[in-house]
Amino acid sequence: MGFIEDTRLVRDGEEHWSGAIASGWDIGGNANGGYLLALAARAMLEATGRPDPVTITAHFLSPGKPGDADVKCSVLRTGRRFATASAGLSSGGRSVLQTLGTFGDLQGTNGPERVDAEPPALPAPDDCAAHKGDSGITSTFMSQVDLRLHPDDVGFKRGEPSGEPRVRGWFRFEDETPIDSLGLLLAVDAFPPTIFNARLPIAWTPTLELTAHVRARPAPGWLRCAFTTRFVTGGFLEEDGVVWDASGRLVAQSRQLALVPRTASTSSDASQLPSPNESTAAKRSRAT
Amino acid sequence: MGFIEDTRLVRDGEEHWSGAIASGWDIGGNANGGYLLALAARAMLEATGRPDPVTITAHFLSPGKPGDADVKCSVLRTGRRFATASAGLSSGGRSVLQTLGTFGDLQGTNGPERVDAEPPALPAPDDCAAHKGDSGITSTFMSQVDLRLHPDDVGFKRGEPSGEPRVRGWFRFEDETPIDSLGLLLAVDAFPPTIFNARLPIAWTPTLELTAHVRARPAPGWLRCAFTTRFVTGGFLEEDGVVWDASGRLVAQSRQLALVPRTASTSSDASQLPSPNESTAAKRSRAT
Repeated sequence: MGFIEDTRLVRDGEEHWSGAIASGWDIGGNANGGYLLALAARAMLEATGRPDPVTITAHFLSPGKPGDADVKCSVLRTGRRFATASAGLSSGGRSVLQTLGTFGDLQGTNGPERVDAEPPALPAPDDCAAHKGDSGITSTFMSQVDLRLHPDDVGFKRGEPSGEPRVRGWFRFEDETPIDSLGLLLAVDAFPPTIFNARLPIAWTPTLELTAHVRARPAPGWLRCAFTTRFVTGGFLEEDGVVWDASGRLVAQSRQLALVPRTASTSSDASQLPSPNESTAAKRSRAT
Repeated sequence: MGFIEDTRLVRDGEEHWSGAIASGWDIGGNANGGYLLALAARAMLEATGRPDPVTITAHFLSPGKPGDADVKCSVLRTGRRFATASAGLSSGGRSVLQTLGTFGDLQGTNGPERVDAEPPALPAPDDCAAHKGDSGITSTFMSQVDLRLHPDDVGFKRGEPSGEPRVRGWFRFEDETPIDSLGLLLAVDAFPPTIFNARLPIAWTPTLELTAHVRARPAPGWLRCAFTTRFVTGGFLEEDGVVWDASGRLVAQSRQLALVPRTASTSSDASQLPSPNESTAAKRSRAT
């Protein structure tokens, strides 16, 4: 099945939708966070009667395992241009995530344009590294998406992180389903964590919260994506994403707040990281 | 009254708090968004039993006028380190904002540190420009906060925007109330909009959504703040904030999604902005 089918829900009440966390979207048994967010957002689109998420935030409450899914969604405000709603996704009686979002219609938006950034420079998709997951983790998710990573950002896969907490690459669905504004919510959470390249012991980096701004509907074709981290402090790190479409237009920005892997924050030898400009190759890490 | 007193609420139900949108925090009659967020967050702290917001998002639903305030807050998850809650603030029976946040204890957090950024270089507070609001707008808010703007970023006040959509400066409360983690929620929304320096007609830039990550409790003293915008597209702009304390530590990051002023997006002569590197002094704007 594809992204559209696997985020389909049935409305069975004024504020209630039913469906499933499909089985094809997990990494190590837990559904990808962007997929879960898109699932909840689909109910929010129907509830608000708007075609596009404009800004949406998810707080992740527990892992989402494949199985039944319920979405409870309340519309908080309906305006002329925008409508705001909150939604909770649960599965097996357990809260999986809570979201809050504002929705609108991004078609034909206009206004002055000023862009102080460039899409990331990437080799052609076929000259990048296809990413099909990390060794030792079974991931059905990685068979749904076609990720091509910048060759400079894949060192972590052979235990040689670049030292720059950055991951750049191309994104599309494996079955080439056109990417709509809901698909962008998945794209911003599909790449390996930036911290894999930061010369920290590699481990699960649980996300507390993810916010995505959808700025435009993407043109058909590959998305160009870049994720960076500037601040690893106090056990937290942010991951900032910028997503551009094939026409060179910004289509989404994202930021998530994640926890530094426990193995890193409790390991005394990792308590002082190399500074950003230090070039010593520290091969402490191993993709797991 | 000060920030602490003016965000005080009385719990009058399991999920219900009462208080007031105090009269000293408005700009042109509408309470500052950061103040309103702090008011709602105070109930969330009590509901979750945690001392600090870690990541919190607000969607602004209608202007908050001074008057009665009700906060309805539900705890969604209580974990060992973190708890997540949602809250709605209403006034006069009208929804003012909805928030979703995760709370914890930021004291004594530790882990590896890696910071790829520097606090903004600012002249000493007394060598910066005290900002007491914009001409023509009555603001009680500006008498509560002590903002000192970077001299390079105040050109918009005399109709000469710098051309860089950036505002940097110092922040403290006028009465020198120590800034706690709740005060940071106000600090990230206290400065003039970056777009005032972008050579666009200056007008109200309504915020749809604001997300703040609180990374540490601030040390006593001035906060060093920088707000920048990289993308003005499709009628939207983001404003990214970074806040550092007097010890040189990152204490907060913020991002808001705002609407480009209508006067700009509908004016044909503003539909093509000067490119970021263009140095022509276009004096179309006037602080209002």
